[in-house]
Amino acid sequence: MADIQNCDSCPSSPLELFERVTAQGEKVRSLKAGKASTDEIDAAVKLLLSLKVTYKTATGQDYKAGSPPVNFSPVSNNGPTTTQDEDFVDPWTVQTSNAKGIDYDKLIVRFGSSKIDKELINRIERVTGKTPHHFLRRGIFFSHRDMNQILDAYENKKPFYLYTGRGPSSEAMHVGHLIPFIFTKWLQEVFNVPLVIQLTDDEKYLWKDLTIEKAYEYAIENAKDIIACGFDINKTFIFSDLDYLGMSSGFYKNVVKVQKHVTFNQVKGIFGFTDSDCIGKISFPAIQAAPSFSSSFPQIFKDKKDIQCLIPCAIDQDPYFRMTRDVAPRIGYLKPALLHSIFFPALQGAQTKMSASDPNSSIFLTDTPKQIKTKINKHAFSGGKDTIEEHRKYGGNCEVDVSYMYLTFFLEDDDELEKMKQAYTSGALLTGELKKVLIETLQPLVAAHQQRRKQITDEMVKQFMTPRKLAFDF
Amino acid sequence: MADIQNCDSCPSSPLELFERVTAQGEKVRSLKAGKASTDEIDAAVKLLLSLKVTYKTATGQDYKAGSPPVNFSPVSNNGPTTTQDEDFVDPWTVQTSNAKGIDYDKLIVRFGSSKIDKELINRIERVTGKTPHHFLRRGIFFSHRDMNQILDAYENKKPFYLYTGRGPSSEAMHVGHLIPFIFTKWLQEVFNVPLVIQLTDDEKYLWKDLTIEKAYEYAIENAKDIIACGFDINKTFIFSDLDYLGMSSGFYKNVVKVQKHVTFNQVKGIFGFTDSDCIGKISFPAIQAAPSFSSSFPQIFKDKKDIQCLIPCAIDQDPYFRMTRDVAPRIGYLKPALLHSIFFPALQGAQTKMSASDPNSSIFLTDTPKQIKTKINKHAFSGGKDTIEEHRKYGGNCEVDVSYMYLTFFLEDDDELEKMKQAYTSGALLTGELKKVLIETLQPLVAAHQQRRKQITDEMVKQFMTPRKLAFDF
Repeated sequence: MADIQNCDSCPSSPLELFERVTAQGEKVRSLKAGKASTDEIDAAVKLLLSLKVTYKTATGQDYKAGSPPVNFSPVSNNGPTTTQDEDFVDPWTVQTSNAKGIDYDKLIVRFGSSKIDKELINRIERVTGKTPHHFLRRGIFFSHRDMNQILDAYENKKPFYLYTGRGPSSEAMHVGHLIPFIFTKWLQEVFNVPLVIQLTDDEKYLWKDLTIEKAYEYAIENAKDIIACGFDINKTFIFSDLDYLGMSSGFYKNVVKVQKHVTFNQVKGIFGFTDSDCIGKISFPAIQAAPSFSSSFPQIFKDKKDIQCLIPCAIDQDPYFRMTRDVAPRIGYLKPALLHSIFFPALQGAQTKMSASDPNSSIFLTDTPKQIKTKINKHAFSGGKDTIEEHRKYGGNCEVDVSYMYLTFFLEDDDELEKMKQAYTSGALLTGELKKVLIETLQPLVAAHQQRRKQITDEMVKQFMTPRKLAFDF
Repeated sequence: MADIQNCDSCPSSPLELFERVTAQGEKVRSLKAGKASTDEIDAAVKLLLSLKVTYKTATGQDYKAGSPPVNFSPVSNNGPTTTQDEDFVDPWTVQTSNAKGIDYDKLIVRFGSSKIDKELINRIERVTGKTPHHFLRRGIFFSHRDMNQILDAYENKKPFYLYTGRGPSSEAMHVGHLIPFIFTKWLQEVFNVPLVIQLTDDEKYLWKDLTIEKAYEYAIENAKDIIACGFDINKTFIFSDLDYLGMSSGFYKNVVKVQKHVTFNQVKGIFGFTDSDCIGKISFPAIQAAPSFSSSFPQIFKDKKDIQCLIPCAIDQDPYFRMTRDVAPRIGYLKPALLHSIFFPALQGAQTKMSASDPNSSIFLTDTPKQIKTKINKHAFSGGKDTIEEHRKYGGNCEVDVSYMYLTFFLEDDDELEKMKQAYTSGALLTGELKKVLIETLQPLVAAHQQRRKQITDEMVKQFMTPRKLAFDF
């Protein structure tokens, strides 16, 4: 799985955008002149093209070198931009110039998925007898495919399984990376089903400047953070692609089956691959597709080919599974169902980049209480007004306030959250006070994670990652 | 590995060629109109294009629908065509309109390999102390890459290993399929080295209308014929890709390494893939490349990454290994060395198709003595003259006579072969008499093969195909 939020820091005014396109054009030219690697050039060209698209949507004009934009509506420096932009979402790039973040309702229409509405949430509650997770109640998991099918199966006592994953691009995981795992753990507990977690170290080797060994090392380190979320060892199988491909009698066969039924034209359309991409990238989507089929895990499901799969993931991963769902019936398999989450915003705002190489862009799982406090106080983008007087008079804007956004993810008490929202919006609660609540929410959460992670031994990692029968009979 | 000799039966006169291009054009149109699979259409278009090239080289004119060729030199019906054509060789298509077969000297220049000359053959004899195999003496293995490096290593007591393979497209193997295995067995005996044999059942699944199960079944059946060649079970590991990918801790890692270093542009150039090819085909070359690296077989070579590989194969497989040799140094591995064989001709002549679906195109390993006799007498293209009188007067043409060609492969006695050649060329030996010699050579050879194959138990196949340490310490 790729990281979300890889968009480059998005400039907010048309003029800034213009300068950004110009600078990127220079960069492409100098890379080409300097005989940079095709990978580097491709990445730079891709960014250039997407900046041009953003420029056009922001100004209504095509970018022309040397002609700065004219007749555009000025953009305020505080609060969301008013330009009508097209968001960009694929597994490697998530880009928007809106401080509220991606327009998810539009994304549902564009991706052709379904909204998780009140009715579905109620059905989940009815069927499981459990209060829906606050990620569901608050629209953090907001979109789905075929979730009703999964609930039908569950009601009919038919088994299903969960599949999620992570692309181990570095050792450093931030709190946002926990979202799919926190939710998956809840699903596993509520439905009591097997779970497989894919670590796409092969993908990271293919996409990044990493050795096979380093990518695998990151996979193991990330596995520790994932295990620390509290998954049940008897119901959970975690695997590195680089390892498991060579240990499963079913996985490669499914990879080849998918690869036979997807053309280069198709992956070009879905993922934007080009002729100068390596054949590893081009064929990788099949590797992420294969765990959607129970026969990829004969140690868990024996020879059962018809156990349906439910995939909780961030919405940027959907292209992989749209492809998978397209192929599935043609190779005699069930389509996986999906639950999609929104993206976790960077501290600097929902339209900026969250990067493992910038420690200030998020709260990392290794941060000390002091670092957490400093980062939030210094870097969390505020929806408050410039002066206390103005704030008291006009109130803050929760829609763009990152501290408030983070609280929607991590403050479990609905009443408390609603109180914050009211008080902040009315101006009764100041930015500093809101930040304090977030700090006091995240400090114990991260400390507890660190505490649990410390308990994870190599032996436990090995056990989680050993192909084996789980506590379910098939 | 792909089958050799997949060229469609090549017409010999420009007019026939013209009609062939026209008919193929019709076929493409009707496939497109009938919404045939893209695979089918692609294959038909590919053939159309190559027929047009052949047409142009044969007539010096571009093909124009409705305008049959004019001013071409007439082609005699007996003996080789005199047109100057460009042969076409890739892993799926081998095409020539010359009855002598492919022009191998030209191929060496085009592929950039080296001729196996007298000096190299002498060195092999000197280094091994064994008489060079008649495949070497007679130019059946005619081209190489870095064979001197292998001999250097051998002289310095440094180990190397052999790698060859087969694409199991059907149960039926013909005598031509034995050539690489007969030669590899000789190399293994002479140099006493480990041997790995790849059965590319995944390739056949990707390219043909086969299920995974059928492709694997063919792999097992083919393994029996390969084992019947007499390989030493203590020195030979045979593997199906579909199986072994899921059993090796090293193979997939090497596949991904190769896949990271080859772009779609490159495989497009080397193999002629198009945007409508499936991503399985596009990434397959890495699967055939991986066995060239000793770390793909940790059970044999432990953690040794620097055991050089020598690949005996038909020259049509060279594109895979040109690619492999290009990638090897970039991923820290040694380039594999190669020994290339010429193609085994169809009974109907070196320019025609040998097809598993046409039982009369070759001698199959399942043929009875009677079938062998009938096929050779009825179908083996003769370089003899039309009447006994003419034959006695002008003599036969060994260069196009398929019975003679087959004898160069299977009659081990050099003096005997030379005697045949003299007698046939002088007219002393008649076609029927030459055919009788071939029949009496092949009948016992095929019968002995059948006898040995009958002894191959499922248990033996399983043993050969179990990843394990061989009789060498690394």
